[in-house]
Amino acid sequence: MKIIKIGGNVVDNEEILNKFLTNYAKIEGPKILVHGGGKIATKISAALGIETQMIEGRRVSDAETVKVVTMVYAGLVNKTVVSKLQALEVNAIGLSGADGNAIQSHKRPLKNGVDYGFVGDVDTVNSTLLSNLFEQGYSPVMAPITHDKKGLLLNTNADTIASTVAVAMSEHFEVELCYCFELPGVMKDIKDANSLISSINTTQYKSLKNDGVIADGMIPKMDNCFDAINSGVNKVRICHADNIHGTLGTTLMK
Amino acid sequence: MKIIKIGGNVVDNEEILNKFLTNYAKIEGPKILVHGGGKIATKISAALGIETQMIEGRRVSDAETVKVVTMVYAGLVNKTVVSKLQALEVNAIGLSGADGNAIQSHKRPLKNGVDYGFVGDVDTVNSTLLSNLFEQGYSPVMAPITHDKKGLLLNTNADTIASTVAVAMSEHFEVELCYCFELPGVMKDIKDANSLISSINTTQYKSLKNDGVIADGMIPKMDNCFDAINSGVNKVRICHADNIHGTLGTTLMK
Repeated sequence: MKIIKIGGNVVDNEEILNKFLTNYAKIEGPKILVHGGGKIATKISAALGIETQMIEGRRVSDAETVKVVTMVYAGLVNKTVVSKLQALEVNAIGLSGADGNAIQSHKRPLKNGVDYGFVGDVDTVNSTLLSNLFEQGYSPVMAPITHDKKGLLLNTNADTIASTVAVAMSEHFEVELCYCFELPGVMKDIKDANSLISSINTTQYKSLKNDGVIADGMIPKMDNCFDAINSGVNKVRICHADNIHGTLGTTLMK
Repeated sequence: MKIIKIGGNVVDNEEILNKFLTNYAKIEGPKILVHGGGKIATKISAALGIETQMIEGRRVSDAETVKVVTMVYAGLVNKTVVSKLQALEVNAIGLSGADGNAIQSHKRPLKNGVDYGFVGDVDTVNSTLLSNLFEQGYSPVMAPITHDKKGLLLNTNADTIASTVAVAMSEHFEVELCYCFELPGVMKDIKDANSLISSINTTQYKSLKNDGVIADGMIPKMDNCFDAINSGVNKVRICHADNIHGTLGTTLMK
């Protein structure tokens, strides 16, 4: 099974998205697409006069913000992707974490005095729902909105959704998890195309983090990758959205 | 099987919605909830500076409007309802027409020179998907957004969704279709609580329409009801959102 995560840079540009989805449609066998959409959410929030507050690359979600991300992620982005995949003969079905109780989470408690608002930390993934959908020929497309089973919708990091879904599905399938973004993979120097790190293990990661080579938003992404590879996922790769077929990019090692 | 449709007056008021959903959760056996959300869409459109244009009670959907209704109907409203039902132990799963190709439609051609924009007229309902979901214990919650299987999302009247889904499901189930709104049923005089029409057949409908007693937005709603009752649906009722249990309201007769 392939689980592929795309972020705002793919979702926000129709040409890049169409190219990606055409490639995605060609993947054989069971597959799950997890998408973000943060850039569109930021634009819509701004148009509605809601200020976007980020702490360490994570969106702070007050009551109004969680409404916007629910609209954008589970509505606009999810249904746009699903309808485009349907046109490409992929029998896509969109899911938020609330749908069929796909992903249950709890509201994040205060962390070091920081209140992230309506942000969810994942508790359980409903792998039975996902397996049943595969059996019937459907291909899930997952939006990064979860719920607490008490009626609260919670904004949840899409990288985390991808890794926790990959871990849950690895109990039933051989899973390859692929994080797509706008770079060829993890780079020692973003400006130097030759500085791609083709494989990385935990020790190397710690060292590159200490040296400040891997920093900012890459840290939670890499943490999600290592969580996955250390919890039963067979392959984890970070690559450019054009390279979901093949082995280009950065491969994670235990 | 019960198919219940709720509109903006239920969806837009949290107290009324919660009361309705508590009642809805108590319905035993297979059930489908179809929702609108037009009032919220109008508010969000206004906040985004998009003008709402209505022709005979139908929203004209330009490219920007269809994005807003996709956000509001398939995102905010659908996931709010699904998460609230999940909290009430209904294993709800939200669907737009694009999801699993649940409802395929085509873009409405010009009608009498009027361009409704990205509005969909329904072609097919995927009753296999809906039946499979019931078998696995899921309860669909449907947003009034459809697709043309060529990548276009289309705004579709929620009353029409409810009646076409009811007709499709009536091939497999005994179906009761129930339209909920803010009145006790079809009234001869909205201001006179005693003027409720408890049952109505096609001949009576034509006569009341000729006399101008049934007018405006009630006409397409009643047309949908009669389409359903004349196409295999066992029972069609129009009632107050508080009265989904029982037989209060207006019952349609062939």
